Amino acid sequence: MKHIAILGFGIVGSGVARVLEQNAARIARTVGDEVDIQYILDLRDFPDSPYADRVIHEIAPILDDPGVALVCETMGGSHPALEYSLACMEAGKSVVSSNKEVVANYGDLLLRKAKEHGVSYLFEASVGGGIPLIRPFLTSLACDRVSEICGIVNGTTNYILTKMKEEGRAFGEVLAEAQRLGYAERDPSADIDGIDAKRKIIILTALASGILPDDGDVYAGSIRGITVRDIEAADRLGGVLRLIARTVLSDDGRVSAYVTPMIVKNAHPLAHVEGVYNAVSVTSPVTGDILYYGRGAGSLPTAGAVLSDVSAILSGAAQAEFAPVFLRKPGAAIPFGEQSFPFYVRAEGSAAEAREKLEAVCASVVRIGDGAEFETGEMTMADVKRALPDAVILPILR
Amino acid sequence: MKHIAILGFGIVGSGVARVLEQNAARIARTVGDEVDIQYILDLRDFPDSPYADRVIHEIAPILDDPGVALVCETMGGSHPALEYSLACMEAGKSVVSSNKEVVANYGDLLLRKAKEHGVSYLFEASVGGGIPLIRPFLTSLACDRVSEICGIVNGTTNYILTKMKEEGRAFGEVLAEAQRLGYAERDPSADIDGIDAKRKIIILTALASGILPDDGDVYAGSIRGITVRDIEAADRLGGVLRLIARTVLSDDGRVSAYVTPMIVKNAHPLAHVEGVYNAVSVTSPVTGDILYYGRGAGSLPTAGAVLSDVSAILSGAAQAEFAPVFLRKPGAAIPFGEQSFPFYVRAEGSAAEAREKLEAVCASVVRIGDGAEFETGEMTMADVKRALPDAVILPILR
Repeated sequence: MKHIAILGFGIVGSGVARVLEQNAARIARTVGDEVDIQYILDLRDFPDSPYADRVIHEIAPILDDPGVALVCETMGGSHPALEYSLACMEAGKSVVSSNKEVVANYGDLLLRKAKEHGVSYLFEASVGGGIPLIRPFLTSLACDRVSEICGIVNGTTNYILTKMKEEGRAFGEVLAEAQRLGYAERDPSADIDGIDAKRKIIILTALASGILPDDGDVYAGSIRGITVRDIEAADRLGGVLRLIARTVLSDDGRVSAYVTPMIVKNAHPLAHVEGVYNAVSVTSPVTGDILYYGRGAGSLPTAGAVLSDVSAILSGAAQAEFAPVFLRKPGAAIPFGEQSFPFYVRAEGSAAEAREKLEAVCASVVRIGDGAEFETGEMTMADVKRALPDAVILPILR
Repeated sequence: MKHIAILGFGIVGSGVARVLEQNAARIARTVGDEVDIQYILDLRDFPDSPYADRVIHEIAPILDDPGVALVCETMGGSHPALEYSLACMEAGKSVVSSNKEVVANYGDLLLRKAKEHGVSYLFEASVGGGIPLIRPFLTSLACDRVSEICGIVNGTTNYILTKMKEEGRAFGEVLAEAQRLGYAERDPSADIDGIDAKRKIIILTALASGILPDDGDVYAGSIRGITVRDIEAADRLGGVLRLIARTVLSDDGRVSAYVTPMIVKNAHPLAHVEGVYNAVSVTSPVTGDILYYGRGAGSLPTAGAVLSDVSAILSGAAQAEFAPVFLRKPGAAIPFGEQSFPFYVRAEGSAAEAREKLEAVCASVVRIGDGAEFETGEMTMADVKRALPDAVILPILR
């Protein structure tokens, strides 16, 4: 019997208990032994749960119990998730995390600690929910040099943008509905301002390159300013509006990672990702383009990803696998504003005036529709902002 | 230094040598040691290759060399690939295969032999080229019960069907072009008659269920009879024509696996898979639907998949992973003809007569277009064939 502990008995943590129960025989076959939840750490009590007698409110009993080989950190947030994870690894326990915030902010430190103490730190559930996205970087793609990652990694914003298009409704109205349906949080900022997607692209960038970008070096654009008019313009341009998380790895070791609403042309596979679905494409010279698509969130899919890491560790496979190292590399980031794209630009007021200002900084400007809306040739966001500081400016992804 | 051998220096085998050379440092980092090709077994000589001095024409030196820990079988065909693989494992060597035919026909025997001799038999490259499709069944999905696999696993037929639609050209004409471009073989039967796809769905079925279906229990439909008229009808029905490989696993342990051209409705993610691309969706209760999409063939992607298995074995990870067992289970297969679908049916001759015959076996028959073309409600292929034995009959996938 293998004993594990769960830190945080919320949506993901309780999902882990549920899947462990439902699929006990299958998991035992994979692990080679039964898996039992010995402790559940949470601030709350769960008197009606079958696990009520395992609930504790302090980390100490877990740290002190040599019978616990593995801890699932499903708390979310940086603190005390970071401190608890480090303490568990110092006590010789492997840690599995679903917590994108702590991995994006402290992945370098956490992986170093795991190495120092000869344990594993795995985080398949931190990006893409149940989509097996992280392990391939350490196995299938470990022999290849990834040059680009491009994806839709936030289901809430994709749901909102899909609904705005399908039903021609305004951003605020669709957001309120998403909140009612539980697809968006009461404070929706982490989703709609690109913060959640930024954490995920930071993690994927680190897996692909070994360099963990600083939070401040990754641009995160919001979908708050998007109107139905922009969505209709995207349609006229033969594309759809999507919140894209992307990283381009240069041969010289520089990294361009960002999150921004973009107009994705219909020929691009990401243009067909609708509703709460996530999809990530990974480009490398040997393998070509691979796209992964599935539900990027939800209690069961995320719990399934946690349990795939649990199985990998308890079966012994993880220890023999290549463990990634995340390093910081100041100066490696290419600022978002310096990168070139074709743009869609929507200004207020006179179309002729806006056109003149744009043409001063870009050779190719095409007016679309009957307002001050334009498609530009390749140029930088910095240049568009210089010309039209108050315009809605969206890069176009072909 | 780890020494390996390659059996068969064709498109895949030579790709393995090329990728091993190009990505030597990265592979050494993953494996923890340098990897060197000690022998290349082929009927031919390669005097101009940098590996000319490693080429041999008999298997014996490989079997007799205790320094060779791993053999890549990239020969294709059942024999002597089977005999060589078994002999290598008996000699204590792990085997990595890209050969779907031998895995589909003898996977049970090969995996049993690996277990007996404490070595690994891996075959990531046998399905989906560079798409990491097989490993997730043994890791991420090992804790979940897969209920359905549905995919486009043959790039040649998908290329032909895509071109027929895009350019309104006849099957024979597009096939000839695909042959000129190297997308189809001179004898195209394995691709266009669904034999290649059948081997792949047999392998995926075995990974998901543990049961290796007999070749004769898996229906394989051809795209030879498809006309531009059928492709236009698919369009009118709001879908596209695709060669679909599918397996549905019942709770009672029965298996329905088949390959058939189908009309895939546009809302289905597989409807957007164009050209030589492959895509496979996997459904399970915990993870939901996951779709994998990428280049399903080609020298480099397939070689990359071979090398991901090589790394997993040489790093020691594969030995700790869950090794699948494939069993035969007579009577588990549900015959294709007994399964219910809505159908598209195109008959020759009088529409009224055809309609009458169809209505005798199906409650819901809707005429589409101006010929003897119909969309039916749910019924079995056996019933449609009974009514209209000579018609083109295509199941519809919603």
